[in-house]
Amino acid sequence: MTCPIAACLDKVGHWWSMLILREALQGCTRFDEFERNLGISPAMLTRRLNALVDAGLLERRQYSSSPPRDEYVATAIALDFRPVLIAMAAWGGKHFQSGPDQFVMINTVSGEVAEPILVDRASGLLIDDAAFQFVPVSQTQAPGGYRRDARGKP
Amino acid sequence: MTCPIAACLDKVGHWWSMLILREALQGCTRFDEFERNLGISPAMLTRRLNALVDAGLLERRQYSSSPPRDEYVATAIALDFRPVLIAMAAWGGKHFQSGPDQFVMINTVSGEVAEPILVDRASGLLIDDAAFQFVPVSQTQAPGGYRRDARGKP
Repeated sequence: MTCPIAACLDKVGHWWSMLILREALQGCTRFDEFERNLGISPAMLTRRLNALVDAGLLERRQYSSSPPRDEYVATAIALDFRPVLIAMAAWGGKHFQSGPDQFVMINTVSGEVAEPILVDRASGLLIDDAAFQFVPVSQTQAPGGYRRDARGKP
Repeated sequence: MTCPIAACLDKVGHWWSMLILREALQGCTRFDEFERNLGISPAMLTRRLNALVDAGLLERRQYSSSPPRDEYVATAIALDFRPVLIAMAAWGGKHFQSGPDQFVMINTVSGEVAEPILVDRASGLLIDDAAFQFVPVSQTQAPGGYRRDARGKP
């Protein structure tokens, strides 16, 4: 049984993969754009783009046939990775940046500094260790679903 | 000016670092526990633990003087990384697992399947691309703070 964090890292666990995804989610699609924005070697970029295509995170589309040229478009799975990158950016900015160049999240409508937190969509409850746990689907299908009191602390 | 995602990856961008943090946040502290739980080589584990101590994510504490033995305790900065790991687990489970071994997040009090989403703590608004942006602190300190209408789209 694989941990879902390991399942995630298996697809995007390489430093460059996450930065390529960041660029793709900002609309970057072409090889030379990724190369320029990231300062990555062509050989490494080719390897990481191929891995992201194989993982279903980027879709390769030919935009020129002569000469043959591909672009790389973020799939729905990649778009769904945005909360991970936002949480990483909030954490990186908060703990490892300082001074005028420190990045903070802003609500551009109100002008206020924002603080991203994880909540459960249905209940609105803050997700912390006490109530929320990852469990295999097979443990959720008993009558009444999964309950800590019926099964002990996971 | 460094991107805050890169600032994050600079500290935890190595696959093993994230898995070591996962273990540390679940209460793992000792070298042989990390080694056993992760199936990681001692040399690699030593390197990654040292890097996480240097980054301020783990605190090294001697728990035995004869023989000398250290343990590694998650710092407040590491505890603050939990939302990133939760978002990664939710994404990994949703897109790259299936069948009875697929992990899902459960509200153990209600027994319902939970779905972690990112919202702004103050406003409660869902954090999506339209309203929320990361900007340098220096751009937030004009009178009235940062506003898209005054400064154009970031």
